[in-house]
Amino acid sequence: MTGFADARRIEALIEGIDRFNATPGRGTTRLTYSPEYRAARDFVAGQMVEAGLEVREDAVGNIFGRLEGRRPDLAPILVGSHLDSVPNGGRFDGPAGVVAGIETAFLFRDLGLQPDRPIEVVALIEEEGTRFGGGLFGSRLLTGQVDPAGLDDLRDDAGVSAAQAMTDYGLDPARAGQAALAPGSVHAFLELHIEQGPVLETEGQDIAIVDRIVGLAQLRVTVRGQAGHAGTTPMDQRRDALTGAVGILSLLPDLARQVGRQSVLTVGKMEVLPGGANVIPDLVTFTVDLRAPAEEDVLRLIEMVQGAVAHAQGNGLTAQVERQLYAAPTPLSGQIHAALSAQAEALGVSHRVMVSGAGHDAMIMAGFAPTGLIFVPSRGGISHAPEEWTDYAQLARGIDVIFATIRQMAGAMPR
Amino acid sequence: MTGFADARRIEALIEGIDRFNATPGRGTTRLTYSPEYRAARDFVAGQMVEAGLEVREDAVGNIFGRLEGRRPDLAPILVGSHLDSVPNGGRFDGPAGVVAGIETAFLFRDLGLQPDRPIEVVALIEEEGTRFGGGLFGSRLLTGQVDPAGLDDLRDDAGVSAAQAMTDYGLDPARAGQAALAPGSVHAFLELHIEQGPVLETEGQDIAIVDRIVGLAQLRVTVRGQAGHAGTTPMDQRRDALTGAVGILSLLPDLARQVGRQSVLTVGKMEVLPGGANVIPDLVTFTVDLRAPAEEDVLRLIEMVQGAVAHAQGNGLTAQVERQLYAAPTPLSGQIHAALSAQAEALGVSHRVMVSGAGHDAMIMAGFAPTGLIFVPSRGGISHAPEEWTDYAQLARGIDVIFATIRQMAGAMPR
Repeated sequence: MTGFADARRIEALIEGIDRFNATPGRGTTRLTYSPEYRAARDFVAGQMVEAGLEVREDAVGNIFGRLEGRRPDLAPILVGSHLDSVPNGGRFDGPAGVVAGIETAFLFRDLGLQPDRPIEVVALIEEEGTRFGGGLFGSRLLTGQVDPAGLDDLRDDAGVSAAQAMTDYGLDPARAGQAALAPGSVHAFLELHIEQGPVLETEGQDIAIVDRIVGLAQLRVTVRGQAGHAGTTPMDQRRDALTGAVGILSLLPDLARQVGRQSVLTVGKMEVLPGGANVIPDLVTFTVDLRAPAEEDVLRLIEMVQGAVAHAQGNGLTAQVERQLYAAPTPLSGQIHAALSAQAEALGVSHRVMVSGAGHDAMIMAGFAPTGLIFVPSRGGISHAPEEWTDYAQLARGIDVIFATIRQMAGAMPR
Repeated sequence: MTGFADARRIEALIEGIDRFNATPGRGTTRLTYSPEYRAARDFVAGQMVEAGLEVREDAVGNIFGRLEGRRPDLAPILVGSHLDSVPNGGRFDGPAGVVAGIETAFLFRDLGLQPDRPIEVVALIEEEGTRFGGGLFGSRLLTGQVDPAGLDDLRDDAGVSAAQAMTDYGLDPARAGQAALAPGSVHAFLELHIEQGPVLETEGQDIAIVDRIVGLAQLRVTVRGQAGHAGTTPMDQRRDALTGAVGILSLLPDLARQVGRQSVLTVGKMEVLPGGANVIPDLVTFTVDLRAPAEEDVLRLIEMVQGAVAHAQGNGLTAQVERQLYAAPTPLSGQIHAALSAQAEALGVSHRVMVSGAGHDAMIMAGFAPTGLIFVPSRGGISHAPEEWTDYAQLARGIDVIFATIRQMAGAMPR
């Protein structure tokens, strides 16, 4: 079949947003409230107007483009994602979902449809947390999970507070609390995102319909020993912190394989001190990021890591684990899942169920309104890198499913 | 008996140098050409002048304080060590030998002695290799073993080249070759150093007279994989550079135990990139420092490390080894050994013969001029750590032996 979405218009929208980039030639860098962010917002707002939407900006810089419904009193369906990026990332992570919303509005216009229920396309700030840390900031503000009093304390790498950055952007940080939506004021939230993993490409599937977002823990392991000279300390008199750390590290990937059920475990950050080539290390720290769809598996993995670390104690070494972050798995709406699945079937879009290994705005919104999330394929599974890519025809297939689902949920009729 | 050297003056000299430290309260860090290095050099030069020496700096920043002899045409006796440190190390490693030279000059002044043969106290740069890697850099430049053309390529952790650092320090890197001494221009080199191991303390000996320095290699291992998102890349589709590196690291300490015969192997420096807690690492580098008294054991260990690295190839990972430094075991001068031994006997300083597990400037100088090296005790055998310590009375006993030996070798007479 031929879909609805226009791959060339989608390409123009993605590339239109990607022009606003602090690091051209070295991937996409667009930090919240930066000059590039402001220009991308203006471009998006212009396209929303073009698509027949009424645009407003909330008190923290999230923008909304509203397609009025026949019954304006009904809570709207929100569709969108975020506009900010990681440093030197790709052009699809975030904008793909914003463009899905805008293209949906263009399709309503082109097909002469009006919804019964209002639809709002959203472009959210600071999902990545690249500028102010923490992440999922736009959706957490929207759902009233951020204390605006803390905006003075959140600072970027240059020491600029979030409050100051908002002021420079033309917002009033004292009004930030007004961004919080009233409970019950959103009928549903739909998000399209790139997979950021290799599964859809490997299996040749068009889209994934996400049924839950994994549970996640971030641990920090510290191993302490005794520094000493590499040439003068006999092997049997050493208290080498790195040897102890390697003993732990060599066990970790197998823990995730042992627990299975889509568990993953990653050590991404590691420091060996004091860091002289001829000095026995006395301090090694590393992070352990572990995720699993089932909360019991997350908890079991934490225990297993704690066990591996405890086992490394002794022989003059101490080792400890701190828990830095914990988020329970988040189930998404079964009803919306069924609706997305039915529309994909009807459109001949191949699909599979997937657990999201990454936390998206949908994770936050799921606690506030019924939420659906679909993934489109990422070439080579690569993301957060300049090579991040999704073919525009694939993106169009995903947007077809979003459009058709919204059309049905919103009760669209010819004008 | 009462010795010559003044323990309180020695303490003041050591502490005077140690004031110039980038990490006060967390051990001593003084990188070559850093502001702290420059200040320590100025202090040492001032003390040399105070002791009656004529000071000059060579083309790479080694400094020399000359006590003129009655026969200025004779090749001088050099005595000294290095001024740079490891990161967060101790105050004695290097400075103890520089102070031995300065205290010797003070004793010549105080006792009204003039040598027949000139004496030069030396303070050398970059023995540890902390800043630019490789190590023994000052003595290798002094003995013509460094190609000055390479100074552009040697870089510190901040990416600053050795040539740039020299320029910033006020030196002209184009003139670096002029630091090389003419063959035959040095009569002998004497160095005092801390043991950096536990043997003298355990045996209750005053000093060790070193008869050879272990063979030493420094290797750099690089493992490359593919970066990816920690949450979205299944365990069996990862090309995790750290997992590959851990596979190598877990084999290494046992290689040294297997070869035995006082072999040691240390991984002291390691970097994991890109370094995000939620990003699978694509690049891991680490150093391997390996040492043994017998050259065949050093060569065998290098081969074994290469084998372990080759074994880690595959599954989408590449791994390679570069050799950054190699030094065969180095015998020191038998004649100077006999002279040091005779003076220790005459002074009632207890002593033993030792193989040095550390490569000191004496190792490089031994290929250039007859060389002697003595060790003084290290408390608890600890070195390259803030706890590094030698009692000043013990240091004075070592300096007595250095002074008495130089006095005899230089043919000192009352002025």
